[in-house]
Amino acid sequence: MRDDAAFLSGPPASRLAALRDAIGRADLDALLVTGLPSIRYLTGFSGSNALLLVSAIECVLLTDFRYEAQVADEVAPHTTVKIEPTSLWAGLWPSIAAIPGVERIGFESAHLLHRDFARLLEQGGRWQWRPTADLVEALRAVKDPGEVAHIRRAVAMAEQALDRTLSVLRPGLTETMVAGVLEQHLREAGSEAFPFPSIVASGPRSALPHARAGDRRLELGDFVLLDFGAVAHGYCSDITRTVVLGTATSEQRTVYEIVREANVRASGAIRVGMRGLAADAVARDYIDACGFGDAFGHSLGHGIGLEVHEAPRLAKTVEAPLATGMVVTIEPGIYRPGWGGVRIEDDVLLTDAGAEVLTTFARHLIEIA
Amino acid sequence: MRDDAAFLSGPPASRLAALRDAIGRADLDALLVTGLPSIRYLTGFSGSNALLLVSAIECVLLTDFRYEAQVADEVAPHTTVKIEPTSLWAGLWPSIAAIPGVERIGFESAHLLHRDFARLLEQGGRWQWRPTADLVEALRAVKDPGEVAHIRRAVAMAEQALDRTLSVLRPGLTETMVAGVLEQHLREAGSEAFPFPSIVASGPRSALPHARAGDRRLELGDFVLLDFGAVAHGYCSDITRTVVLGTATSEQRTVYEIVREANVRASGAIRVGMRGLAADAVARDYIDACGFGDAFGHSLGHGIGLEVHEAPRLAKTVEAPLATGMVVTIEPGIYRPGWGGVRIEDDVLLTDAGAEVLTTFARHLIEIA
Repeated sequence: MRDDAAFLSGPPASRLAALRDAIGRADLDALLVTGLPSIRYLTGFSGSNALLLVSAIECVLLTDFRYEAQVADEVAPHTTVKIEPTSLWAGLWPSIAAIPGVERIGFESAHLLHRDFARLLEQGGRWQWRPTADLVEALRAVKDPGEVAHIRRAVAMAEQALDRTLSVLRPGLTETMVAGVLEQHLREAGSEAFPFPSIVASGPRSALPHARAGDRRLELGDFVLLDFGAVAHGYCSDITRTVVLGTATSEQRTVYEIVREANVRASGAIRVGMRGLAADAVARDYIDACGFGDAFGHSLGHGIGLEVHEAPRLAKTVEAPLATGMVVTIEPGIYRPGWGGVRIEDDVLLTDAGAEVLTTFARHLIEIA
Repeated sequence: MRDDAAFLSGPPASRLAALRDAIGRADLDALLVTGLPSIRYLTGFSGSNALLLVSAIECVLLTDFRYEAQVADEVAPHTTVKIEPTSLWAGLWPSIAAIPGVERIGFESAHLLHRDFARLLEQGGRWQWRPTADLVEALRAVKDPGEVAHIRRAVAMAEQALDRTLSVLRPGLTETMVAGVLEQHLREAGSEAFPFPSIVASGPRSALPHARAGDRRLELGDFVLLDFGAVAHGYCSDITRTVVLGTATSEQRTVYEIVREANVRASGAIRVGMRGLAADAVARDYIDACGFGDAFGHSLGHGIGLEVHEAPRLAKTVEAPLATGMVVTIEPGIYRPGWGGVRIEDDVLLTDAGAEVLTTFARHLIEIA
């Protein structure tokens, strides 16, 4: 008996159908996809060198000989694979020419280097090239149940690793050593990769929103901020917890509680149909009312999926309404230079029945004895 | 007494002087640097969002508020820093306009997205924009003693981590778990980051030159290929060793010895003045003569530095001669689909007195009991 689930590899064909609708609405005959996460989304191919051309009737993936075995395992049956011996670009032109009726071709303006744009004009001059923005990204922002399952798994991996890491935190370890322990537990939990360089920021360094792990040694009384994620089937999680090494001061506790309340309020309020800026405002207005408005210098959150930062954004300027199936981070923070900072970040799924906070890890202030 | 080494932060001003010479030779008044590793090379700034404009008299670095504290710590005194509240591009135009005599400005064709190229034409239309290639990369290819010291440190970190990891290899561990152990030891050794996703490829998967770590469990008799690196002060190492779990078969031993001999011959022959293609040929001709020419499907090596792949390349098509101060990988391999593969990769410094192999880790076949 044929097992279709095993027989058919790659993502559902509905993604390609939705993209073809978008290509048609943009008055294009085809789209050249150069963003690798979007190529993975459409075809299943996870390699590091590929071009994808999608027309109404064709879906051609070009990659190189290094990926010959991998691409056969990964891609959906609706994809025509071409293995190029030298340059993918050299293989692109005849692939386009072989498709009848293609004149106007979109390219991804945010995912094409000038060097390669010059190739389109010089070597691909027989076609009309039009810049596009976010055609695939708009589809990727809404996750299907399979994608949500992968993100749930990546969240669970991150939570398991955090739990095991907190139990070994102690004064004298460097931030880099703590990152190593955390990353090993992420691997132990099955994480395929690290979606971004792990942040372990202690003491005054916790006030730097983009600190990485450094050689500072943890001290008693430090805030220790851990911001990291796991990857499952290509899908990322992204969580942050901030703990105190030893007993928190009342000032630390006060700041922590404001951030926690902002996190809980935003997760409780976010819903389908809300604008990105309104979600951001829930947390921001609360932090502002507590007198720390200037200390929350970044936006509330961002979509997660095949990339750790993708659409939609939850930020002051974002008018677009949130949709069912979006998965976003909720990550308010307060940063006081020289003193320290707190961020509490959860991953949240928007459903018609309300928002589901995928992160289950404790949000109360943890003091590491 | 003033301690100049501590007082002066950032890289030596000689780099900027050399770039200004190159800008002049290219008949430009200024260069817009958008590649982040090149910005770090020139200014010391290691953040993830920056633009740099270099003219004969100015060196202006634009970044955002998140990096206000970090940039002050990192950058050389010859750099003018501007913290932009919103878009770096919005801050760029007045910064250029403030420099007298700037008309023709180069940009980095390989490090500028079409989206941003469009900004140059639309918002920066009062200047003449010229694509450039490799102006900074050519400088970066030749390392100074300080850079070499960082690479040496990154090599030592990688070797220490490998040594500790091999002692725990055993059947039943997944590749991902092995990667976790390796990465924790890299962190323990002080590695700031992972220069690329660690490759742990076992059994038949060792034949995939671009495998990452997966969920395959190690089995007795497997080749286990580990390709990974460390980062010290931003500088990368990149090493590969292939071991056998248990006792090697004579076929495994034969293939291993061919790769080892190719590695040793190439490291022994490479020297200043040799062309990239000649270095590649030393290893390739030997593997070919042993009957495995088709199984060495990639080039011999590449430069390492602030990026794990940078100039120069050691490949069949590279005519350019190697120079004193270059640091390259030497990484011959043999890959037999379905059976397995071997790669042995060292990092090599070219000096006037000959090539110095920075990697000291054993190159003989290690059988893990």
